Amino acid sequence: MITRQRTNWLSMLFIWKGSVVKKIVVQLLIILVFSLTILYLKGKIYDYKVPLNPTIFTLIGLALAIFMGFCNTASYDRYWEGRKLWGTLVIASRSLARQVLTMIQDPSPESKERKIVFIKMLAAFGWSLNYQLRHKSGTEHLTRLLPAEQVNTLKGKRYIPVAILGFMGEWISEQNRKHHIDTIVLTALDHQLSQLSHVVGGCERISNTPLPFAYSVLMHRTVYFYCFWLPFGLVDSLGWMMPLIVLLISYTFIALDAIIQEIAEPFGEEENDLPLNSICRTIEHSVFEQAGIPCEEYTPANTYVID
Amino acid sequence: MITRQRTNWLSMLFIWKGSVVKKIVVQLLIILVFSLTILYLKGKIYDYKVPLNPTIFTLIGLALAIFMGFCNTASYDRYWEGRKLWGTLVIASRSLARQVLTMIQDPSPESKERKIVFIKMLAAFGWSLNYQLRHKSGTEHLTRLLPAEQVNTLKGKRYIPVAILGFMGEWISEQNRKHHIDTIVLTALDHQLSQLSHVVGGCERISNTPLPFAYSVLMHRTVYFYCFWLPFGLVDSLGWMMPLIVLLISYTFIALDAIIQEIAEPFGEEENDLPLNSICRTIEHSVFEQAGIPCEEYTPANTYVID
Amino acid sequence: MITRQRTNWLSMLFIWKGSVVKKIVVQLLIILVFSLTILYLKGKIYDYKVPLNPTIFTLIGLALAIFMGFCNTASYDRYWEGRKLWGTLVIASRSLARQVLTMIQDPSPESKERKIVFIKMLAAFGWSLNYQLRHKSGTEHLTRLLPAEQVNTLKGKRYIPVAILGFMGEWISEQNRKHHIDTIVLTALDHQLSQLSHVVGGCERISNTPLPFAYSVLMHRTVYFYCFWLPFGLVDSLGWMMPLIVLLISYTFIALDAIIQEIAEPFGEEENDLPLNSICRTIEHSVFEQAGIPCEEYTPANTYVID
Amino acid sequence: MITRQRTNWLSMLFIWKGSVVKKIVVQLLIILVFSLTILYLKGKIYDYKVPLNPTIFTLIGLALAIFMGFCNTASYDRYWEGRKLWGTLVIASRSLARQVLTMIQDPSPESKERKIVFIKMLAAFGWSLNYQLRHKSGTEHLTRLLPAEQVNTLKGKRYIPVAILGFMGEWISEQNRKHHIDTIVLTALDHQLSQLSHVVGGCERISNTPLPFAYSVLMHRTVYFYCFWLPFGLVDSLGWMMPLIVLLISYTFIALDAIIQEIAEPFGEEENDLPLNSICRTIEHSVFEQAGIPCEEYTPANTYVID
Amino acid sequence: MITRQRTNWLSMLFIWKGSVVKKIVVQLLIILVFSLTILYLKGKIYDYKVPLNPTIFTLIGLALAIFMGFCNTASYDRYWEGRKLWGTLVIASRSLARQVLTMIQDPSPESKERKIVFIKMLAAFGWSLNYQLRHKSGTEHLTRLLPAEQVNTLKGKRYIPVAILGFMGEWISEQNRKHHIDTIVLTALDHQLSQLSHVVGGCERISNTPLPFAYSVLMHRTVYFYCFWLPFGLVDSLGWMMPLIVLLISYTFIALDAIIQEIAEPFGEEENDLPLNSICRTIEHSVFEQAGIPCEEYTPANTYVID
Repeated sequence: MITRQRTNWLSMLFIWKGSVVKKIVVQLLIILVFSLTILYLKGKIYDYKVPLNPTIFTLIGLALAIFMGFCNTASYDRYWEGRKLWGTLVIASRSLARQVLTMIQDPSPESKERKIVFIKMLAAFGWSLNYQLRHKSGTEHLTRLLPAEQVNTLKGKRYIPVAILGFMGEWISEQNRKHHIDTIVLTALDHQLSQLSHVVGGCERISNTPLPFAYSVLMHRTVYFYCFWLPFGLVDSLGWMMPLIVLLISYTFIALDAIIQEIAEPFGEEENDLPLNSICRTIEHSVFEQAGIPCEEYTPANTYVID
Repeated sequence: MITRQRTNWLSMLFIWKGSVVKKIVVQLLIILVFSLTILYLKGKIYDYKVPLNPTIFTLIGLALAIFMGFCNTASYDRYWEGRKLWGTLVIASRSLARQVLTMIQDPSPESKERKIVFIKMLAAFGWSLNYQLRHKSGTEHLTRLLPAEQVNTLKGKRYIPVAILGFMGEWISEQNRKHHIDTIVLTALDHQLSQLSHVVGGCERISNTPLPFAYSVLMHRTVYFYCFWLPFGLVDSLGWMMPLIVLLISYTFIALDAIIQEIAEPFGEEENDLPLNSICRTIEHSVFEQAGIPCEEYTPANTYVID
Repeated sequence: MITRQRTNWLSMLFIWKGSVVKKIVVQLLIILVFSLTILYLKGKIYDYKVPLNPTIFTLIGLALAIFMGFCNTASYDRYWEGRKLWGTLVIASRSLARQVLTMIQDPSPESKERKIVFIKMLAAFGWSLNYQLRHKSGTEHLTRLLPAEQVNTLKGKRYIPVAILGFMGEWISEQNRKHHIDTIVLTALDHQLSQLSHVVGGCERISNTPLPFAYSVLMHRTVYFYCFWLPFGLVDSLGWMMPLIVLLISYTFIALDAIIQEIAEPFGEEENDLPLNSICRTIEHSVFEQAGIPCEEYTPANTYVID
Repeated sequence: MITRQRTNWLSMLFIWKGSVVKKIVVQLLIILVFSLTILYLKGKIYDYKVPLNPTIFTLIGLALAIFMGFCNTASYDRYWEGRKLWGTLVIASRSLARQVLTMIQDPSPESKERKIVFIKMLAAFGWSLNYQLRHKSGTEHLTRLLPAEQVNTLKGKRYIPVAILGFMGEWISEQNRKHHIDTIVLTALDHQLSQLSHVVGGCERISNTPLPFAYSVLMHRTVYFYCFWLPFGLVDSLGWMMPLIVLLISYTFIALDAIIQEIAEPFGEEENDLPLNSICRTIEHSVFEQAGIPCEEYTPANTYVID
Repeated sequence: MITRQRTNWLSMLFIWKGSVVKKIVVQLLIILVFSLTILYLKGKIYDYKVPLNPTIFTLIGLALAIFMGFCNTASYDRYWEGRKLWGTLVIASRSLARQVLTMIQDPSPESKERKIVFIKMLAAFGWSLNYQLRHKSGTEHLTRLLPAEQVNTLKGKRYIPVAILGFMGEWISEQNRKHHIDTIVLTALDHQLSQLSHVVGGCERISNTPLPFAYSVLMHRTVYFYCFWLPFGLVDSLGWMMPLIVLLISYTFIALDAIIQEIAEPFGEEENDLPLNSICRTIEHSVFEQAGIPCEEYTPANTYVID
């Protein structure tokens, strides 16, 4: 995610980083060359003048407005729902940590240690969901946070976060069996586990069910049809400025097409995707702080982008 | 559902599979032939020149924007709500499995077996809802997962998923009567059953209440009125390119009309519908993995489409 | 509600039933006659040429787009929220039936009978809400499903569904007083009653609070102003085809106005309204099936419309 | 709120009451006079012809569409959320009444009387929120419904509804201390109080946080800029009909601006605002009917408007 | 936040305060000078006439409508969600205060004092979230409201509101350990703490995840491209009025761009941001009034703006 602040209005006009230009520079160059060719040919192909008609822009523009408006909203909804789910993860992790720390009445001296084991499971849970959504097999953070036997059990499992939820459920039921909590507190704690389960399911849903493919295809085609038709429509009236104007208008629509594509899969690692690593670190730091566990400082590389 | 990744921008323009062309090829051919005829006649019918007026496209375009914008949003909402409900099914199934596995304190040696019976009921529940929504009478998966006497009881029932929920409710109450759980845990488990009931009711709602028919009729008519009027409006200004342009614009709108029709009934078996079978398999694998039940590997046919 | 399936693209263009034409045939005829008159007069009134200006269509079109877009969305939201509330009614009825059947431990031999009394109250509840929303005083279904003394108590009550909820609450508390359930299960059951109360309140809200009247008036006026202005604007450019085109465009907008009017009051008995009777029957059949009560078969009249 | 039914299509065109004309008649007259002046001057000011350009309407129209579309939706959302909150108030009041009447097991002979005191507090709660939102200091209904000492305690309090909630909470805890309910039922009842608290907070939010002022200013200015520019743009092409057309188009936009202004503050006492008094009466009648308390009949003044 | 009432229609047209003009006056002046230059040059640059084409406004206008419509809605959603979260904070604080005051049965004489300590923690919680969101290190209100040892513990903590939630959780568990409440009431109180945790998480989400930067860049560029192109497009047709019209149209779009920028970060201290200080004061006054703690009067500076 780009965390750059909006700067003053003038420099916003000439910012390069975060403006998606990098991803679409090839297409824009092709359109520029194409426009210059059309300008040179004065809109003729083999002596046939390609007829111009501003009405066509209204017609295609209508389709474009419907598709882009819809796909953009739908993509952003996916992005924002993904963010909300990870927000819920932060919230439920903290609530669960608070409840475990204050509501479990374990008189034994190992009480504190046992609770720390649980708190670390919470932190590991976030990382495991992160790994699953980004299709990574890394176990670095899990090894660091989970007891060795749990790490072993996880091997070969397909749904790691669900398995860690199982560990947590087991840990909580253990507290009930040892009479540190009664079933009322047990169900209250278990309710938070269901919240975590809800986050896993929601993220899987967004990750596994893309925007219906037919929309992407149709929008993409309409955008390019529109942009490649622009030079024919503007060559007579705009003259020598046509390639510049075509480039600017094309930039707008093709960049939006590219953003939509990025935003629609919010768990990826592209520039405008959600900073899952940062959120995992927030969860870890926050629950560690609640439990009084020291946690190492993380210094982000000094850029505008967090991952 | 088509799970194809968006490929590079150029190949997206020429993809065939997933572009809805197959479904609307007849209509597009008719429009092409019609356009060519109008071109040949130079827009005259029996010496009467059909008058041209770009204003008309603005007028019909307005109606088109209102109808298509609305129907598209409403259809996609149905699709996405359907997906959310099935996501809730995954979540509630896992939560219920976790709770049954950790919170029921059954000291008897058959404890594990009894729990496996319940876990299999959970998997069967998903399949039964799948069958009901797709209007299939298949019992293949139910026979595999449910005890024989339950399969018998289900015969002749109209609301199979509700009946399986009844079995699960009975199983849980049985645990309470045997004092393996108290009423607090009982109500917590029953709450998850109500979640499953919520999924059944929500899916039935989407399935039984289509988009009001009048909208479909009006949108459909406006689309075709628009497309068949295009040749008259463009024949003079575009000349020999008219049929091509008409074809491209018609493709956009008719394809959208077809997608809306498909998406609005998300539980069907068309290319852009929800992959209910896959989700059922996910539920089964996930709860089986939680309970440590081995489950056979499923290898999808190697295509872009999952069902 | 019209349950007609979308048929093939061609026959959709010529369907009569469900196309709202019946309701607006008078207005369309008036517009047709008006158009023909304008055509005959060549757009002049007493030798004064009524001036034509396509810009006006853009201006009124803007207002039309804002009003129709908004009113349509707001109406459909009311319709769909109404449907969701009735869906919640189905869900809560089934959940309550399941809970009563499995969680109440009544050892007495009349247990089954008592539960059947409750299940019938549930079915009656749906019908009573139906009566209230459709402003019917009918008691046919209530007499069939409720004990005689309850039917008597209901006489003269203004909020029948709330009163039936009171009966159900009383029945459940009775179970608690007889120690068939403890207060934990009592509150779980009562929670479902609150769900039913939520449905009653939500339906009353939609029913008693129409779309603000000023919107309806403004939209209506804009639509007709637009349609009656069309002939002046198109008579010169379209010539003899003008009345046909005006008719088609007017059909689109006036039909949408009519649909919006119908959909906005979703509990009525018009063609596009919600099939409350069907849903009540579904509830009755479903909870009866859960409790094993035989229920008579209902054969719908063989039409496309369910009520 | 205007409860007028939509009448037939023709009379809808000429309705006066509920059409917002009354509120904007001055502005419309000014625009009419202005248009006539422009017509008389033929669009010239001191011999300078004010240049005409239909493009300008497209430009301002774009801004107008964005502002009006947004402000209208945002205003209506506020209105409808306000209505939903009051609907929740009706629902929670009834649920609480039902629970108090059925779940509190008070064997003493004053049981009935004590419950009636509580039911009256419920009714008073609605009225107190009504007073707060409409900035009235009236205590008429509170004196009628609450015990004298409570009325005294309320004097000088700033948050009356919250204080009444406190009374209700105290009453319920009293029942627990007297062992008429256990803590399980206590928390269930308290949950409904939290619902009521949610309604108070939600209404205060809508009431205290208007639509950001900058939007209102910008929309207002764009509307009037548009309307006063219309005569210049249409004087040449429409001639003698210009003032009439300008009046009709201005009516549409200025009326919408006025409706938005009214709807955005839904708790006021204007024609299109929410009928808080009616809803309070509904709550009172409904909970009184549940408890069997007789309540006087209210005969609304025979108009189309309820307050 | 500006709390100014909408005044009469005429004065709304000339209001300065709250009209965002202050923030964009530089840009508007530059555009005015630019327009006057273009007017003087008659649209020529070094004898090359920059070609004019109204179609271009349609093309860029389409992009502008898509971007502005989307960004505006997304920004306002962030603003309104932020407001809702703070509304939830008010609601949950009051509910928690009510529950603590009525449901905790502490017979000891210090009961009242202990509860007051908790009520003050509640008030401090709001202020701490305020400080965090506005990136202030102030502890003024915390020192006033919290016991000294808690203030010490908070030093060096990164997540202050979460830590205060921990204090509250500890206080409530203490009540349970002293048997003033049972675990049922404990979990009910803890549920409100989870609500507060939900508010913290939600606000952090909005605060840490800006609108994707790429949208801001694209919208900003499209707006300025549009505004600087206007003079070329209008110079011929509007003549001497061009700079005025360009200024008015530019004002509309640039002001909207500025509002969107402000509203998207609703927790800042700009004119249209949320009045966090006021809400904190409301919470403090309200819970103090509930507990009967006297609180000093706050007299706002007499302006239209609350912070």
